[in-house]
Amino acid sequence: MAETIGFIGLGIMGQPMAINLRKAGYEVWVHARRPESMQPVVAAGATACDSAREVAEHVSIIFTMVSDTPDVEAVILGENGIIEGVHTGSVVVDMSTISPTTTRVIADMLETQGVEMLDAPVSGGEKGAIDGALSIMVGGKAEVFERVKPMFEVMGKNIVHIGDNGAGQVTKACNQVVIAQAISAIGEAYLLAESNGVDPRKVREALMGGFAGSRALESHGERMLDGNYQPGFKAKLHQKDMRIVMQTAEEMGIALPGAAAVTQLINTAVGQGMGEDDSISIFRLQQKLSGVKVNKD
Amino acid sequence: MAETIGFIGLGIMGQPMAINLRKAGYEVWVHARRPESMQPVVAAGATACDSAREVAEHVSIIFTMVSDTPDVEAVILGENGIIEGVHTGSVVVDMSTISPTTTRVIADMLETQGVEMLDAPVSGGEKGAIDGALSIMVGGKAEVFERVKPMFEVMGKNIVHIGDNGAGQVTKACNQVVIAQAISAIGEAYLLAESNGVDPRKVREALMGGFAGSRALESHGERMLDGNYQPGFKAKLHQKDMRIVMQTAEEMGIALPGAAAVTQLINTAVGQGMGEDDSISIFRLQQKLSGVKVNKD
Repeated sequence: MAETIGFIGLGIMGQPMAINLRKAGYEVWVHARRPESMQPVVAAGATACDSAREVAEHVSIIFTMVSDTPDVEAVILGENGIIEGVHTGSVVVDMSTISPTTTRVIADMLETQGVEMLDAPVSGGEKGAIDGALSIMVGGKAEVFERVKPMFEVMGKNIVHIGDNGAGQVTKACNQVVIAQAISAIGEAYLLAESNGVDPRKVREALMGGFAGSRALESHGERMLDGNYQPGFKAKLHQKDMRIVMQTAEEMGIALPGAAAVTQLINTAVGQGMGEDDSISIFRLQQKLSGVKVNKD
Repeated sequence: MAETIGFIGLGIMGQPMAINLRKAGYEVWVHARRPESMQPVVAAGATACDSAREVAEHVSIIFTMVSDTPDVEAVILGENGIIEGVHTGSVVVDMSTISPTTTRVIADMLETQGVEMLDAPVSGGEKGAIDGALSIMVGGKAEVFERVKPMFEVMGKNIVHIGDNGAGQVTKACNQVVIAQAISAIGEAYLLAESNGVDPRKVREALMGGFAGSRALESHGERMLDGNYQPGFKAKLHQKDMRIVMQTAEEMGIALPGAAAVTQLINTAVGQGMGEDDSISIFRLQQKLSGVKVNKD
């Protein structure tokens, strides 16, 4: 069966993802709140629609890539939403990062209409989206995952089916817990080095070769030393993700004190006007608090 | 000039390091508090001495690998210590993990005797010591580093000269800051997954492919899932290292709240009798606190 593709949400991530699907030869129908976001995708051969409902009427697989939990709810379940146009047997694939709990609720509602759902949040940022090199963490039925996999392979490289509906979102939450704390820990290491008159660049080099080595130290750690706070991944989006983490922790009744502490740093960065900068901006606050200057910023 | 080697401290790390130096063809004189620790090294062809002083009398490069700051002070500056026997032009290379501040004081005292010092703490654990694959972080003069480098290359793989005396210890402290928080963050991610009914093994697999990927997730993260708390690196030694970190932070007047928080977890693990287990034992406490069981332990 030749699948036809819908793509809703054409922001910094969704636009290159939809273009990559179109370039791979799929028929693509799109919708975005801001009509101008659709233009580059339409220029690549996609068809613009006036609503999510209209997209759903035309296609068999509908991807959503929007900002937050309420946006996903609106686009799928709201007025002129997917649920009003979707065919029995179609699949809704939400690639946004949202609440695992809400994801499960939406999946249940779609199932009553004979519609399957996958949650498939990504990591890898704008560059990963453009290069078709995203990490994609997928929750939902195995056979549905297999059906959508060829499309995931257009958009990503490290594609893992984790478990049932919501498992992709849980994995993304875990990912953000680890990365946020890695950034904070690297920042503390740099403060410790700099305050002792030791070159943090040399420290990074030494740490990269041992058990402290990480992708975060390699990538985020270098940008922190350069004082390069260009996103990357915006602090306000990391804030949203950590809100999901802490909300999920509350729902599950578990303690994540490390994640909670770094969330306070991210909140403060956003509060001080760094929401549009990369989430490594928490390193600015760490330097300010301790009166240590690692870079010129 | 053919260097002759002294090695003081023949514990779980020092013993294989000294044996590797002997196997590489160096003449080696050794001393350890417990005479039985010397036997395997003597069997490999080293010469046993009754004191650190006696070792220092025979050799041009003296390595120390003992437990903590006071042990290094005793072995170098104490009665029958290195300082009583050492020749002008010799080098003392402390490979223990101790206070950067004390390291600088000892280096200054040795310098008044015309003796050079390097601080060269390691990471990589017993396996790294046996395999000659340690990471070695070195502080001290560049020309002294070059002189000792052939011996470092027998014991290690990732050998970095960081800066002046103390810089190696500062780097090791940074290393421990990053690793301790990585373990704690991975533990939190596993709790979040397990409490949501998501397989933490699948989460680890997905995270390994993205920006959350790290050596800690690869190695410590796997042992945490297996409930394998065999050291590796003992919690009581990580506790000692974090004590050095927090003491240095106080001396420098900087805030390391993440490091401080994980130190509390490590203290608690040691307090609950896990000091001889691996420092990933903090994951047992995380599970206990949240009433989540990721593994059978």
